[in-house]
Amino acid sequence: MITLSSDFRSPYPAAMKGVIASQSDARLVDISHEFPRQNVDAAAFWLSEILPYFPSAVHLVVVDPGVGTDRDEIVVRAGDHALVGPDNGVLLPAVRELAAEWSVFRLAEYGTDEQSWPPSRDSSTFHGRDIFAPMAAHVHEVGVDSLESVDALEPTDDYEPLELPEPTLREDRATGKILAVDGFGNAITNIPGHVLDGRYDKHVEINDSVARVRRTYDDADPGRRIVTVGSHGNVELAVNRGRGDQSFSVNTGSSVTIKY
Amino acid sequence: MITLSSDFRSPYPAAMKGVIASQSDARLVDISHEFPRQNVDAAAFWLSEILPYFPSAVHLVVVDPGVGTDRDEIVVRAGDHALVGPDNGVLLPAVRELAAEWSVFRLAEYGTDEQSWPPSRDSSTFHGRDIFAPMAAHVHEVGVDSLESVDALEPTDDYEPLELPEPTLREDRATGKILAVDGFGNAITNIPGHVLDGRYDKHVEINDSVARVRRTYDDADPGRRIVTVGSHGNVELAVNRGRGDQSFSVNTGSSVTIKY
Amino acid sequence: MITLSSDFRSPYPAAMKGVIASQSDARLVDISHEFPRQNVDAAAFWLSEILPYFPSAVHLVVVDPGVGTDRDEIVVRAGDHALVGPDNGVLLPAVRELAAEWSVFRLAEYGTDEQSWPPSRDSSTFHGRDIFAPMAAHVHEVGVDSLESVDALEPTDDYEPLELPEPTLREDRATGKILAVDGFGNAITNIPGHVLDGRYDKHVEINDSVARVRRTYDDADPGRRIVTVGSHGNVELAVNRGRGDQSFSVNTGSSVTIKY
Repeated sequence: MITLSSDFRSPYPAAMKGVIASQSDARLVDISHEFPRQNVDAAAFWLSEILPYFPSAVHLVVVDPGVGTDRDEIVVRAGDHALVGPDNGVLLPAVRELAAEWSVFRLAEYGTDEQSWPPSRDSSTFHGRDIFAPMAAHVHEVGVDSLESVDALEPTDDYEPLELPEPTLREDRATGKILAVDGFGNAITNIPGHVLDGRYDKHVEINDSVARVRRTYDDADPGRRIVTVGSHGNVELAVNRGRGDQSFSVNTGSSVTIKY
Repeated sequence: MITLSSDFRSPYPAAMKGVIASQSDARLVDISHEFPRQNVDAAAFWLSEILPYFPSAVHLVVVDPGVGTDRDEIVVRAGDHALVGPDNGVLLPAVRELAAEWSVFRLAEYGTDEQSWPPSRDSSTFHGRDIFAPMAAHVHEVGVDSLESVDALEPTDDYEPLELPEPTLREDRATGKILAVDGFGNAITNIPGHVLDGRYDKHVEINDSVARVRRTYDDADPGRRIVTVGSHGNVELAVNRGRGDQSFSVNTGSSVTIKY
Repeated sequence: MITLSSDFRSPYPAAMKGVIASQSDARLVDISHEFPRQNVDAAAFWLSEILPYFPSAVHLVVVDPGVGTDRDEIVVRAGDHALVGPDNGVLLPAVRELAAEWSVFRLAEYGTDEQSWPPSRDSSTFHGRDIFAPMAAHVHEVGVDSLESVDALEPTDDYEPLELPEPTLREDRATGKILAVDGFGNAITNIPGHVLDGRYDKHVEINDSVARVRRTYDDADPGRRIVTVGSHGNVELAVNRGRGDQSFSVNTGSSVTIKY
């Protein structure tokens, strides 16, 4: 199985699928191609939430604001998963969820006798199609346990780390950031849900406004703002049958302070 | 084959696919994850239109405004299809299209010796991933004929019915509702297409405006409002190369009166 | 493998998939269902860019402003690919990329003894589901080499050509059109990238504005307009981390003049 993630929108992901299908019969599953544009943090968050639910697979990830610059391309082995993408940190939070230890390989300069992979580096703008998709298909065919045997891959310890931003927790408040906004408009913070323990059905201050802590969306009347814990375990700003991001005036990257 | 339907938007459906792929090699086909949010009637309409075109399959449906409340989870056997979703009526119109008779099972409270399914009920907000997806995979693996053998399922006659709203047909007018708006902006009513028989190329009154009855979109000039019969057999309000919903000022749930 | 392309948006493509899955176990891959509505040129451009990356497949294409009129339905054999769609030219640019020679077949009127395909022509508005999807599944099952054996198909030389608009190249300027706008807002012209050779990092005039020629998006500061060569080899109007279509005030079909 090969999963595909990008910020490309339709129809570019189809070209990657064609390239992969030309090299491999692997089952293809889309994670998303609607990730916020060139936002490495948001993609990293979603991948860390979703990839752990998958069985052994190769995960192709192309959220790549540095395409065309000299950033490396990497493959990470994490347990029986392999992740393929740019060396900008986008893979790391998911890697840490998938396995306690991992190995990183970078795509090396390769001689003219390297025929199979990647077929070309000509396109300076669509590495998803021209480099990463053939890499993912090749890794799938070779197998995650045999990455050492691939001529064009060399082990490295020099890769971009990425830590999602950490919240600050004090007795009377928690301060953090919006990691992502989902399709319902729920704004997902980096603040762990346990800060709401003992506060259900009470009011808290969110930045300059007030909202009630609720266990589920449906505990509030339609249109009312709530603070709740999402399926990811983090504090989430939401509106029952409405959009939390708009109501709380936040977006991916916004600062959030919760005062109890 | 397992089909997936929800109002989740990207990227949540991918987590359901990961859960299913961990339990089953079933082929996965998306129906839609763009159904109007928490709108049971609209999802029920689309499913009743689309699922009958599928061969034998398990259909996972998560449009679930009551997530986190005590509504039941059900599995419905309809011919050689099984439908898995919340007990809020969303499955029923499709069930009636798929088979003349059906059986309903509810997910029972289950002992600690029930290991396999569902793995947890911990998340109060993402039952699609944590309850319904494992249910659908399990039903697929067990087979639709063997639902009685599943410990956690118990037959029930106590489930939420759902009848899509019925139109009122009189000699000089038909009164109904907009069931759904498609991606072209065509507004699909619950009024059967036969009311337009004998009226093609004539004008009718739609609420407070006038439009011509046409057999196909292309019979009208671009930008002109038309009344036609859609592929579902119902009256549809449309604009050739434009959006009918905007031009007729209607949306899902709006009332519609056609005067001849 | 059967690929699917349309301008339908969700959920209509699912009905086509159900129809195909009822007739064939072919793997299904979506190219896009978000093509600009009823815009034959834009769909033709994208298909000519993307389909060549696919291995042997049947390509179902439904961008069909003439649905319900008497335009023909055709199947084109191009190498080991087959393309199925309306006879409005949308298939031709991709066909020319896929093979040097091709054969065209039209769906003939067929007797009552033709049982298998297509099952009905009843729907006047959803030929994608009722005619093209069964055609594509049938072509897949019969095999692209055996189209001559299908009773309902007859060879024809009378079909709609489609040439994408050609640019005019002079010494001091190039004049062309916007063929498509991608999901990033990059506006893709029909002007070949070689006109920018020797002009990198210099300014050019685009219609009434000025922008710098860049090799990659990231060579410019965020928010700055650039002129570059896209992965398709054509000149593209873009904004680093912004939308080129809005900044240059162009859309699909707009005229573009580049003065050096």
